[in-house]
Amino acid sequence: MRTILLIGAGKSTSYLLQYLLQNAEKEKLHILVGDKDPNNAIKLLNNHPSSTAIKLDIFNEDQRVNAIKKADLVISMLPARFHIEVAKDCLAQGKNLVTASYVSPEMEQLDQQVKNKGLIFLNEIGVDPGIDHMSAMKVIHDIREKGGKMVLFESFTGGLIAPQSDTNLWNYKFTWNPRNVVVAGQGGAAKFIQEGNFKYIPYNKLFRRTEFLDIEGYGKFEVYANRDSLKYRNAYGLEDVLTLYRGTIRRVGFSKAWNMFVQLGLTDDSYVLDNSEHMTYRAFINTFLPYSPTDSVELKLRHYLKIDQDDIMWGKLIELDLFNDQKTLGIANATPAQALQSILEQKWTLDQDDKDMIVMYHKFGYLLEGKKHQIDSSMVTIGQDTRYTAMAKTVGLPLGIAALKILNKQITTAGVIIPILKDVYEPILKELEDHDIVFTEKSVPYLGYNPQKEESTI
Amino acid sequence: MRTILLIGAGKSTSYLLQYLLQNAEKEKLHILVGDKDPNNAIKLLNNHPSSTAIKLDIFNEDQRVNAIKKADLVISMLPARFHIEVAKDCLAQGKNLVTASYVSPEMEQLDQQVKNKGLIFLNEIGVDPGIDHMSAMKVIHDIREKGGKMVLFESFTGGLIAPQSDTNLWNYKFTWNPRNVVVAGQGGAAKFIQEGNFKYIPYNKLFRRTEFLDIEGYGKFEVYANRDSLKYRNAYGLEDVLTLYRGTIRRVGFSKAWNMFVQLGLTDDSYVLDNSEHMTYRAFINTFLPYSPTDSVELKLRHYLKIDQDDIMWGKLIELDLFNDQKTLGIANATPAQALQSILEQKWTLDQDDKDMIVMYHKFGYLLEGKKHQIDSSMVTIGQDTRYTAMAKTVGLPLGIAALKILNKQITTAGVIIPILKDVYEPILKELEDHDIVFTEKSVPYLGYNPQKEESTI
Repeated sequence: MRTILLIGAGKSTSYLLQYLLQNAEKEKLHILVGDKDPNNAIKLLNNHPSSTAIKLDIFNEDQRVNAIKKADLVISMLPARFHIEVAKDCLAQGKNLVTASYVSPEMEQLDQQVKNKGLIFLNEIGVDPGIDHMSAMKVIHDIREKGGKMVLFESFTGGLIAPQSDTNLWNYKFTWNPRNVVVAGQGGAAKFIQEGNFKYIPYNKLFRRTEFLDIEGYGKFEVYANRDSLKYRNAYGLEDVLTLYRGTIRRVGFSKAWNMFVQLGLTDDSYVLDNSEHMTYRAFINTFLPYSPTDSVELKLRHYLKIDQDDIMWGKLIELDLFNDQKTLGIANATPAQALQSILEQKWTLDQDDKDMIVMYHKFGYLLEGKKHQIDSSMVTIGQDTRYTAMAKTVGLPLGIAALKILNKQITTAGVIIPILKDVYEPILKELEDHDIVFTEKSVPYLGYNPQKEESTI
Repeated sequence: MRTILLIGAGKSTSYLLQYLLQNAEKEKLHILVGDKDPNNAIKLLNNHPSSTAIKLDIFNEDQRVNAIKKADLVISMLPARFHIEVAKDCLAQGKNLVTASYVSPEMEQLDQQVKNKGLIFLNEIGVDPGIDHMSAMKVIHDIREKGGKMVLFESFTGGLIAPQSDTNLWNYKFTWNPRNVVVAGQGGAAKFIQEGNFKYIPYNKLFRRTEFLDIEGYGKFEVYANRDSLKYRNAYGLEDVLTLYRGTIRRVGFSKAWNMFVQLGLTDDSYVLDNSEHMTYRAFINTFLPYSPTDSVELKLRHYLKIDQDDIMWGKLIELDLFNDQKTLGIANATPAQALQSILEQKWTLDQDDKDMIVMYHKFGYLLEGKKHQIDSSMVTIGQDTRYTAMAKTVGLPLGIAALKILNKQITTAGVIIPILKDVYEPILKELEDHDIVFTEKSVPYLGYNPQKEESTI
């Protein structure tokens, strides 16, 4: 009997728990779920004989250490900043650890100690980061094995609403943490490389520099650049690649409309609005517009953002009820971003029957025998319902699969690692296919940005 | 004989030193000038019998304390962040202190101790802050004395090029710290109040929300909002005022053109450009534009910023030689803001015969006997040459005058203070008039933003 301790039983654990419990008997697992509110865990576990729910406050060292002692492997689903305490305990107790979060500098520092103890701390094994690493490295390794040299890598992911539930003008609903959507792109210019040239996009232009994308059977999407496309340059071995670009997928038109909020200043999270609690939606919008004793908020906004009378952008604003002078924000000391989030949540929350959708798309450009080639690889996963979402599936299954493969010694690379080694990603990707998380790879004409010559021009 | 220690002998001390030396005999002063490079001080003092130049490294505690011990009063012209060490020594040694900088939180914390020792630490006694406080408070006090109630206060200052030296399309040259100009407005939304309504402008719109201003004999100017117009609400006793707005003055058209840099991302000071040292001006601009193997940087920029073929904005860019593919930035690890500054300094540095100009303009709206009234108060000072600049004059003279008035016990309010009390500003403003720093006050029709009614509408 092996015990897996799952810390944090939020809504994203549905598929993970289902997977672990379904494998419990065959794999001789006991699933111990710790959460500061065990009621949620109790509901999810539904008295499954191979499971126990316990109250676990991760700030309580005794509770934390005692729980970890009982485990053979720990899966932390806590917010990323809390992993490090769990990681230190795992190191002290000699337990393996799996998380879906980015490797923090503090986590990275444990690498040598983790190696010394022969432990595996596998991070970034959710969807993004996670499935993106694995599916990209698989193609990159394939290309290298046949003698190709990578010249272009672009990688895009989006958490979206499924086509059958896409019912608003924004073609968007919140399928994950709304706050991350509202403040996306803030904190510095987006940085990437195109044909050997470094490119920077400031926040105020980020949502106007989109690229388009077609996915067979799903139509057209758009992509805006992530903050740092260069993050995995070394990890992927792409130091010499001419084009390196990572982005976030939205339905066409979302970004241009979102840019209205950016231009107005509604996404600012750095200061608190005066009297936000009793501020109406209309007053909220007006606070970003010049004062006038007579002109309407509507016309001032149209003029300020140059929105034509027949522009559907306007319909997107109306749909959000932004000019309502009765509804109030109802949040004391709200930042503009918090106020905007609460307005959007009125309209962009999943309905009971809604399904979400995860879309991932990679482009690989490479040189082989003097010719440029391109492989596009894409994956679309649609959720089952609002609990068994595509997001929970694509985050949870890689975690669960990886946990079992570590327990069963099919993954053996010690240290603080991410799933970019073949030994790690190959068996996981293979099993994901059994769960209909499948990448479609196809050769396409090399598109790149500079089809005529390899050298870049400025 | 009284000794004044002046710490920091940069180019802004020309008028201050001239004033102190001219008054040395009559006022029985000895002027001790301390600088880490005493050569500059030696040159400025020109062997004046009432002066001594010493080497003073303010990070050397012994040097600092010894110099302060010798003084009856200290004037610190150091960068603002270094005042606090000097202030602590002044407190310990029981010496009065005068600076032209904003009161920092650390400085503010000394207030009670300074009061307990009966000392005066007078700050914000330059031009802005300084002359703005004094000239505004004078009118505000006048209005209150005749029974008026303030309803509007707007205050604008600009350090500009004098009309006779205004020779470029931007109508601007650097007359003070260029870095402050390049990063102006960053770090958060501008915040002010118009007719009782809080208004916020994000950085990306700051330079498109200007207001115009006419100054008799000098023509039209424009104003963009300062970060925090509400800063002095309490200090000035303007808690109930309906309109409170502070701004920076530029010549008409500057802000709209500057906004091109903001939109491109050239003013970003938060990250370092790749290979900045050998980057040409043209490559610098191109790094903010989409990649193209064929389209020119010029056309990409025109399209990106929607600059018409016949728009003078384009001429402003050309004048700066921004598309030059030979000139390189020549700065390793430069941020975009540092790169832009170095390009601008090639064109916007004062010529030998250039004169600068300080412009200040206040609007005071008030209610008296049921009627709205308005007083506008303005001041223009033109520099003598590139050493005896208007900036050095309007910063240095208030400092020098205040220092003497403290020594002569004409200013006696103890504590960490700014010049908003009548006892402080009245004698200083009076003496400034002898040096042709004169405010013209005139009654004008109340303009405000809402002439029909006092209450605000949203």
